[in-house]
Amino acid sequence: MSVVYRNIERAPLAIVDGLAECGAATVHEAMGRIGLMRSHMRPVWRGARIAGTAVTVSIPPADNWMIHVAVEQCREGDILVVAPTSPCDAGYFGELLATSLKVRGVRGLVIEAGVRDVAELETMGFPVWSRFVSAQGTVKATLGSVNVPIVCAGAAIAPGDVIVADDDGVMVVPKADAERALQASRVRLDKEQQTRARLAAGELGLDIYKMREALAAKGLTYID
Amino acid sequence: MSVVYRNIERAPLAIVDGLAECGAATVHEAMGRIGLMRSHMRPVWRGARIAGTAVTVSIPPADNWMIHVAVEQCREGDILVVAPTSPCDAGYFGELLATSLKVRGVRGLVIEAGVRDVAELETMGFPVWSRFVSAQGTVKATLGSVNVPIVCAGAAIAPGDVIVADDDGVMVVPKADAERALQASRVRLDKEQQTRARLAAGELGLDIYKMREALAAKGLTYID
Amino acid sequence: MSVVYRNIERAPLAIVDGLAECGAATVHEAMGRIGLMRSHMRPVWRGARIAGTAVTVSIPPADNWMIHVAVEQCREGDILVVAPTSPCDAGYFGELLATSLKVRGVRGLVIEAGVRDVAELETMGFPVWSRFVSAQGTVKATLGSVNVPIVCAGAAIAPGDVIVADDDGVMVVPKADAERALQASRVRLDKEQQTRARLAAGELGLDIYKMREALAAKGLTYID
Amino acid sequence: MSVVYRNIERAPLAIVDGLAECGAATVHEAMGRIGLMRSHMRPVWRGARIAGTAVTVSIPPADNWMIHVAVEQCREGDILVVAPTSPCDAGYFGELLATSLKVRGVRGLVIEAGVRDVAELETMGFPVWSRFVSAQGTVKATLGSVNVPIVCAGAAIAPGDVIVADDDGVMVVPKADAERALQASRVRLDKEQQTRARLAAGELGLDIYKMREALAAKGLTYID
Amino acid sequence: MSVVYRNIERAPLAIVDGLAECGAATVHEAMGRIGLMRSHMRPVWRGARIAGTAVTVSIPPADNWMIHVAVEQCREGDILVVAPTSPCDAGYFGELLATSLKVRGVRGLVIEAGVRDVAELETMGFPVWSRFVSAQGTVKATLGSVNVPIVCAGAAIAPGDVIVADDDGVMVVPKADAERALQASRVRLDKEQQTRARLAAGELGLDIYKMREALAAKGLTYID
Amino acid sequence: MSVVYRNIERAPLAIVDGLAECGAATVHEAMGRIGLMRSHMRPVWRGARIAGTAVTVSIPPADNWMIHVAVEQCREGDILVVAPTSPCDAGYFGELLATSLKVRGVRGLVIEAGVRDVAELETMGFPVWSRFVSAQGTVKATLGSVNVPIVCAGAAIAPGDVIVADDDGVMVVPKADAERALQASRVRLDKEQQTRARLAAGELGLDIYKMREALAAKGLTYID
Repeated sequence: MSVVYRNIERAPLAIVDGLAECGAATVHEAMGRIGLMRSHMRPVWRGARIAGTAVTVSIPPADNWMIHVAVEQCREGDILVVAPTSPCDAGYFGELLATSLKVRGVRGLVIEAGVRDVAELETMGFPVWSRFVSAQGTVKATLGSVNVPIVCAGAAIAPGDVIVADDDGVMVVPKADAERALQASRVRLDKEQQTRARLAAGELGLDIYKMREALAAKGLTYID
Repeated sequence: MSVVYRNIERAPLAIVDGLAECGAATVHEAMGRIGLMRSHMRPVWRGARIAGTAVTVSIPPADNWMIHVAVEQCREGDILVVAPTSPCDAGYFGELLATSLKVRGVRGLVIEAGVRDVAELETMGFPVWSRFVSAQGTVKATLGSVNVPIVCAGAAIAPGDVIVADDDGVMVVPKADAERALQASRVRLDKEQQTRARLAAGELGLDIYKMREALAAKGLTYID
Repeated sequence: MSVVYRNIERAPLAIVDGLAECGAATVHEAMGRIGLMRSHMRPVWRGARIAGTAVTVSIPPADNWMIHVAVEQCREGDILVVAPTSPCDAGYFGELLATSLKVRGVRGLVIEAGVRDVAELETMGFPVWSRFVSAQGTVKATLGSVNVPIVCAGAAIAPGDVIVADDDGVMVVPKADAERALQASRVRLDKEQQTRARLAAGELGLDIYKMREALAAKGLTYID
Repeated sequence: MSVVYRNIERAPLAIVDGLAECGAATVHEAMGRIGLMRSHMRPVWRGARIAGTAVTVSIPPADNWMIHVAVEQCREGDILVVAPTSPCDAGYFGELLATSLKVRGVRGLVIEAGVRDVAELETMGFPVWSRFVSAQGTVKATLGSVNVPIVCAGAAIAPGDVIVADDDGVMVVPKADAERALQASRVRLDKEQQTRARLAAGELGLDIYKMREALAAKGLTYID
Repeated sequence: MSVVYRNIERAPLAIVDGLAECGAATVHEAMGRIGLMRSHMRPVWRGARIAGTAVTVSIPPADNWMIHVAVEQCREGDILVVAPTSPCDAGYFGELLATSLKVRGVRGLVIEAGVRDVAELETMGFPVWSRFVSAQGTVKATLGSVNVPIVCAGAAIAPGDVIVADDDGVMVVPKADAERALQASRVRLDKEQQTRARLAAGELGLDIYKMREALAAKGLTYID
Repeated sequence: MSVVYRNIERAPLAIVDGLAECGAATVHEAMGRIGLMRSHMRPVWRGARIAGTAVTVSIPPADNWMIHVAVEQCREGDILVVAPTSPCDAGYFGELLATSLKVRGVRGLVIEAGVRDVAELETMGFPVWSRFVSAQGTVKATLGSVNVPIVCAGAAIAPGDVIVADDDGVMVVPKADAERALQASRVRLDKEQQTRARLAAGELGLDIYKMREALAAKGLTYID
């Protein structure tokens, strides 16, 4: 039952890097508002905006053995995505594992559990999104799997999918949709740039988006 | 059922500005310890301390249409206060809406739901208090109301009431009580200034507040 | 029922100071992974790493009277540890009490409830770990006890025990175990230093910790 | 600051009794989907469906003194509605207080806190909706107010408003709206009765509510 | 983006019915301890044990339009499985929809949101597992999809998969694994039957499962 | 580090049985309102009221091996009390373990984690208090300890202490205090019996407890 898939197909890094520039919220909108992890996934330190290809880990509660196994499967441009098989706040990951991932070119960690050494992670500049921060240690006793489809924080992820993560949260883009997501995100960014300028000049969204008629049709009533 | 009240009576800005200097905790104490929103309302970025007059929005879950409607009702010195009709963590608000509010002189946003673009909001210096941060998008399909009485994070708010918000939380002062709140807050600040000096000099609160006798009367026992 | 123990035995400060350098996660591991408070105990501001001897307070919900009593029992090197008798998010503690503790040489506060004046606490450099931040005021009406054994955030604490707290959480070391904890922590730090260098050079944890055989014995399967 | 209003205007019991027959969900829909308490308000025992006029209590955390004060203000047909000024799970209420309320003709209790003696409450047939069940005792040290406007579980309530409560939750109807709510609820019940018969006969909601055209207009696509 | 797949492949009902007899916990163990929904999914009433084939619904928060669409896609032996695209506690479902499903032979509902009319659902004998109970109404304004892969309460589900639900929770079995799951579950039940008899006769699990040696090898120490 | 204490001193069963009759709330009050577990500890089925002597288990998250070890240490009149070393909702315990405990005369289980087979547990009449219900399975890989002091749901428990549990929650009485607790509880029950009769006759708590003067002294104001 415990397997490690060594060869996974990854989304192309050129597209991945383009998605990083767009950010999680824009890519989420461009994809039709699906694929976002639950809002309890928060950055351990603020200010990072990354994208990468997912190496996935299904892991037992409070047991980080499989993260050591997964490190070997990671390469330049990856993001490690870890989901426990039942909810757990223990600190699976700290600066030693981050050191090991960083030297392999891994861009960050996404884990629906706890991490520790958060001050050191920020100093190292290694980005982490997690549900909890906790010094609680874990054991190395029970297997899990690497590079199998998982559910992490409410989102389904296949190995090689694109992860886009920033201060707004963590977004998953299926690798087959990555190119389309990038194109749609760029269109959206261009459009937002124009809207931003008009809003900054004092125009109202009500007018820019031509909402007044639809609101009236729904029955919105203004009272002086 | 969906109405927008255009003309609301606001608390005078001179009083509002005075309350901003006092901060949420002091005003809360001065008002007799009522009017504070629940502690899950947290600043999206740290360090802002503001006060303003409430423009209120009652809004459906995961639908931000009415925020666009509300923007038009805002003016210099306002704070937009938004409460969904049932709990929701979606990201109703981002930097485009903040751009629109900022150009109108709005001082900040208080929302018992999610917001996104939090890095940009901090860069813009637009203060936001929310329950969640989330990139999750919303729709524009269902109406709500603007400038009606609402309950936000456990506090009842009428349009035009004063909102005082800082890193300690969000406080609501009914507009009829604003002047009294400011006076009582200033008295309290003066008193605290004196107490602070005595405590810093090593005096004990037990003595400054003359607590020893009351504690003994209640039966407090010291054991060596 | 309400007592204040004036004379408690404290762990030696030389050992306490050594533990501060090791940090919560290392000491937790060195102690066999017990004694950590729940992960909901978070620093009010980031970056502090302290250790001290516990002065404990069992306190009613939303009533901070006994903190004033406890201040007098604190001395140089202490950390005040406060647990309400039932869950409460009210703001028991602010900068006035911090001023009073700081002048006595107290190193920080650990409280499974709320605190306020968090901006001021950071400016003062007074470290606080709490479950909540809230401006909500408290009363002074009901007694509790000082320097009795308490449970705070899931950890049992006796007066005089060592508290080690940093951005990863809050750890409790029974005073009888403090010296052993320091020795074991230092051994661990030395070992980690060597491991870190090897990981940074590209060696894998799988090899450093010699995990491959045990993983295979458990049945881990690699699929190309 | 602590007041007890002795004379409040109550909604007429004839209307109140009519609303009890309609139930919380129907009245909520009839009122335009506003006025429902948060879903954490749950019946302590299942099967009761009541309505009554609200006697409101604003109460300190973990202090039930004011409930004793409120009992005297209750009369036949009332429901006691209690909200602590900050979140609290302590057991404010048990079978002794229920005995006292029952003898006065009070129909039930709604409290955003804890209660105890839940087996006895069920045996007595005294209905209670609460957020928590807890044996945790409370003190009698600090005042609150009776028959002032309160916020309970996210709903604003004025003294004398109608409370409708059953296994689905707790609904508040402003007393000025009670008659209209009853009429609209009855219309709704009649309509549901007809719909139920058609659904039971195998007709689809899609057809009964004539949704197919609107769904198609929105772009819903069927794929075989 | 909003699609309804009309023709899905379902697991055979003979196997489904066999799995119902085994119950969620046994099937979960037989499948290698994967596929269980989060423990916040609870039966609205106690005592049902069912299995069926999943008709899946991805639905907006607080909008139940797509449930009406999904009803038409359901047939004898199905279980409707509904997941909102962001967390929501509104009451999407009540006795009218249950009437409609029941007449089509649908065995139950699993929804990671709220439901209402819970007393009526129990009276009807229509089993429901949900995260919340709430009278809060929903709108019919925004589309979703039917019979697409979804994540519900942390579990990935494809249309036609087997759902096994009872008082212990909700389990998902991919349809390709259903036959194997049934065989493994029956083996497990047989084995448990024998174990139960031995335990009831006073034998210890330590001996039946031959744990003593492994415990000693791990270092377990008995102290008299 | 992993130890099993075989010989513990237990509170006398005659006293334990007396405490069972008093119930958790009464004993909690009689002990001065300390020793209650957090309100998230709920009965898996309603209606049991038991007391017993604690056999304690400190156990890893999602690993129930030590429960099998603990069973052997249990005897007539015991209650098994289990606390994971970090929060966990997995289903550690089901009807097989209950069968084993029941045959040894164990009165119930208290566990700050999950259990399963809840329908069977009710049928067997084996009382369980837990934080969660979950079918999620556990492993048998890592040791813990039996009959060491633990913290369970916020309460400190030593082996042999008395546990009193009913629908109101779970109470811990240190064995040294058991006799005093029983006496005080009986006094309290007698007093409550008299109060109940007076309340049922229509007297007010305000008068029975002579509260009016104290309320007036605090400043309570009645407004007609």
